[in-house]
Amino acid sequence: MADKTNKLKARLPRGLADRGPAEIAATRRMIETIRVVFERYGFDPVETPAIEYTDALGKFLPDQDRPNEGVFSFQDDDEQWLSLRYDLTAPLARHVAENFQNLALPYRSYRFGWVFRNEKPGPGRFRQFMQFDADTVGSGTMAADAEICMMAADTMEALGIARGQYVVKVNNRKVLDGVLEAIGLGGETNAGMRLTVLRAIDKLDRLGAEGVKLLLGPGRKDESGDFTKGAGLDSGGIDRVLAFVGSKGANGDATIANLKNVVTGSASGADGVEELRQISALTTSANYGDDRVLVDPSVVRGLEYYTGPVYEIELLVETKDEKGRPVRFGSVGGGGRYDGLVSRFRGEPVPATGFSIGVSRLQAALTLIGKLDNKAAPGPVLVTVFDRERVADYQKMVAALRGAGIRAELYLGNPKHSVGQQLKYADKRGSPCAVIQGGDEKQKGEVQIKDLILGATLTAIKDRDEYLKKQAEAQKAVPEATLVDAVREVLTRHGVNWA
Amino acid sequence: MADKTNKLKARLPRGLADRGPAEIAATRRMIETIRVVFERYGFDPVETPAIEYTDALGKFLPDQDRPNEGVFSFQDDDEQWLSLRYDLTAPLARHVAENFQNLALPYRSYRFGWVFRNEKPGPGRFRQFMQFDADTVGSGTMAADAEICMMAADTMEALGIARGQYVVKVNNRKVLDGVLEAIGLGGETNAGMRLTVLRAIDKLDRLGAEGVKLLLGPGRKDESGDFTKGAGLDSGGIDRVLAFVGSKGANGDATIANLKNVVTGSASGADGVEELRQISALTTSANYGDDRVLVDPSVVRGLEYYTGPVYEIELLVETKDEKGRPVRFGSVGGGGRYDGLVSRFRGEPVPATGFSIGVSRLQAALTLIGKLDNKAAPGPVLVTVFDRERVADYQKMVAALRGAGIRAELYLGNPKHSVGQQLKYADKRGSPCAVIQGGDEKQKGEVQIKDLILGATLTAIKDRDEYLKKQAEAQKAVPEATLVDAVREVLTRHGVNWA
Repeated sequence: MADKTNKLKARLPRGLADRGPAEIAATRRMIETIRVVFERYGFDPVETPAIEYTDALGKFLPDQDRPNEGVFSFQDDDEQWLSLRYDLTAPLARHVAENFQNLALPYRSYRFGWVFRNEKPGPGRFRQFMQFDADTVGSGTMAADAEICMMAADTMEALGIARGQYVVKVNNRKVLDGVLEAIGLGGETNAGMRLTVLRAIDKLDRLGAEGVKLLLGPGRKDESGDFTKGAGLDSGGIDRVLAFVGSKGANGDATIANLKNVVTGSASGADGVEELRQISALTTSANYGDDRVLVDPSVVRGLEYYTGPVYEIELLVETKDEKGRPVRFGSVGGGGRYDGLVSRFRGEPVPATGFSIGVSRLQAALTLIGKLDNKAAPGPVLVTVFDRERVADYQKMVAALRGAGIRAELYLGNPKHSVGQQLKYADKRGSPCAVIQGGDEKQKGEVQIKDLILGATLTAIKDRDEYLKKQAEAQKAVPEATLVDAVREVLTRHGVNWA
Repeated sequence: MADKTNKLKARLPRGLADRGPAEIAATRRMIETIRVVFERYGFDPVETPAIEYTDALGKFLPDQDRPNEGVFSFQDDDEQWLSLRYDLTAPLARHVAENFQNLALPYRSYRFGWVFRNEKPGPGRFRQFMQFDADTVGSGTMAADAEICMMAADTMEALGIARGQYVVKVNNRKVLDGVLEAIGLGGETNAGMRLTVLRAIDKLDRLGAEGVKLLLGPGRKDESGDFTKGAGLDSGGIDRVLAFVGSKGANGDATIANLKNVVTGSASGADGVEELRQISALTTSANYGDDRVLVDPSVVRGLEYYTGPVYEIELLVETKDEKGRPVRFGSVGGGGRYDGLVSRFRGEPVPATGFSIGVSRLQAALTLIGKLDNKAAPGPVLVTVFDRERVADYQKMVAALRGAGIRAELYLGNPKHSVGQQLKYADKRGSPCAVIQGGDEKQKGEVQIKDLILGATLTAIKDRDEYLKKQAEAQKAVPEATLVDAVREVLTRHGVNWA
């Protein structure tokens, strides 16, 4: 079994990661902060398992080029297909539909947990990651969407992100759909054409308005000479799409006014703009103005199930891209209205809206701006094994320390290790303090208390008297009966707190 | 999409469950209590993902009748097999092996999370359940095992299980192996025979010593006339196995003395007994005597990877079996030493020991004995929508309440609903208080504060004066500017606390 030539390779599959003490503790604090905000907004926790029937999840992932992929799937013993959830929204829709009669509607719930994507992993792109969601099901009013946006803003501030360092952007799927409808691209038969238009719009950042204009019209030749076929819109159509693309005004009200013009002639487009106006009116009146919740037509959410308002939480904090250029941190979450997702099961309309925080990504952002204490708890007090025949005595000391609420452990390494080797282990663990009892101390009924934090500073002390004084403080013999008090003195000296 | 004839069925696959607010809150409190105990013992958190390479997990599940089953598996895009973890120990072994050079050894860590079993689900038997583990890797000393047992005991008491209501039982795999070796059943070739003996021993509860004796010898015919072939041991062998089965003494020391006789002639058996003696000496000296940590040869742990001491946390609390007969609650966790699990990767011996708490099962036990507050948080204060043109005003009130740290929500149901219908929703949510502002109140600059808890008691009041007094208290108009204070008065009256 322990044959070197035949041994197994210990490795994680790509796109998966282990997490250490500092990261776990930081996540725990984040989760707790988010939970308190969500509960204050009236949301209750509810959780679903990691596995669902594949058909219940539906296929709403953005990666359309790989049908049947994107999710991890396997067959049950009755040959039905099961999948790992790829988000927390689709399982919630299943939960609501299954328990519809017993729920108080509107049903407001939150949950956090791991989700899984069977995608090509990349830098910062994992196949298992954590989301923290909140949803209101059974409410068609825009007040539900406004609440989600305000809660997203409050969550950012509760996590220490200052006003002005984030913004919750709101758009509406119906607006662009309305534009496309108005220029004759509505209906099932134009789905491919709409996709071409969407892809053109998506290249605005890279190609500018001129490039997008070519892609909406006859097509565009790039520097290498490669030709991309265009959508073939007429000049009226092109102008309308470009007007949409350029509809962002100096503030939310101006944007809404621009959008109103852009959707002329489309009822659903006008609907979308009116919904944006209502959300904006509600959030503004509750003091969540443009600096916190802002109408922004550039927001696109990848998931296909959104039917109305969509939101994006963007951090304006600056960071560097892979080439060292300053960029904004960008999206740490978002969501939208998904009125069709529960209806799939119910055969009746069930409006719903919700959002999702990307916990790992947000954690990276908070760490970057120094708003998350990313340190692990200090190590335990180490009781060393000086005489291995007396392990039971040392174990008793450890039990006494723990009984007093002090984090402590017995040295469990090779009992032949010298006290010096054991103290090296204490250093590695970040232990603040060690306890030693050799034969001499035993006879005198004493223990040695070593202050390891103070001890580490000794070499830097030049003055001989000062050195001797500190040295005496860093290691002293005390009666065994006062062990707990003596250890506590060291902990108090350095403000050690494991909570 | 919302066609009744074509709609999807909303259902969870068998053996999986959704979790509601009360259960989630109770788990959170439990997890927090366990975490504090484990950290006090010097363990640090570390987490691994839910997915691992199948070969890294190994095949250590008890269900030997279904090779390749027991776990959920699927192929990666490079055709390598991946599996969902079936416990937290095998992934930890992989983690340790992968990061061996960077870890401070002995490496003491804890983790909790969901694990998955591809098994036939049954009552109380789920395909996804939560475990909370702690492990010490890189320590061969029995002090490591003793610490695990004491920590298990402390954890039970921290969770509110009184001393005497639980016991941590310790056995050692080497003892029975030694017995089998001593009667000539050692070595690879006798594996099948050993299994027959183990199965016979396992039937002690059901068949008694006489039945087991037959199964160890020539075989046994049951009442229906069916014959089970026996192990065919000679009378010396049978006596030795029965002596092992009956080796439990009046206390730990007596059991150890009995076991010493039983393993005569087997070096590894003697090793096993000596290890039990050391664990017992250490725990007893630290004040974890037989009433908390007890040597008990009946402990068997299902998982195959254990190599030495094995532990079982048993609750002695009485409950009823499916036929209503009183039984002890039984195991809520356990573990053991698994010296071979990390070695599979390392090609060198890496001793390790650890244990696992079955969180869901323990939660059921704690609920049963009333030691777990299994109530969800109270519902939010509901601000009703009296006049749907004035949603923005109501939204502002909600924002004011939340700003003061009060759990509150706007009524988001159909805005045509009457205030009566809205108050029914508040009842369903368990809201302590509702806020109403109609046209009259608006003009007077007032709001109505309804104390819903007090209101629910009114019908029981017989005395007219008392009724009128309470009724006035249960609903009163206050200036809108004092909204927050008035709501807080209601919350204080009933001790409502959402923390």
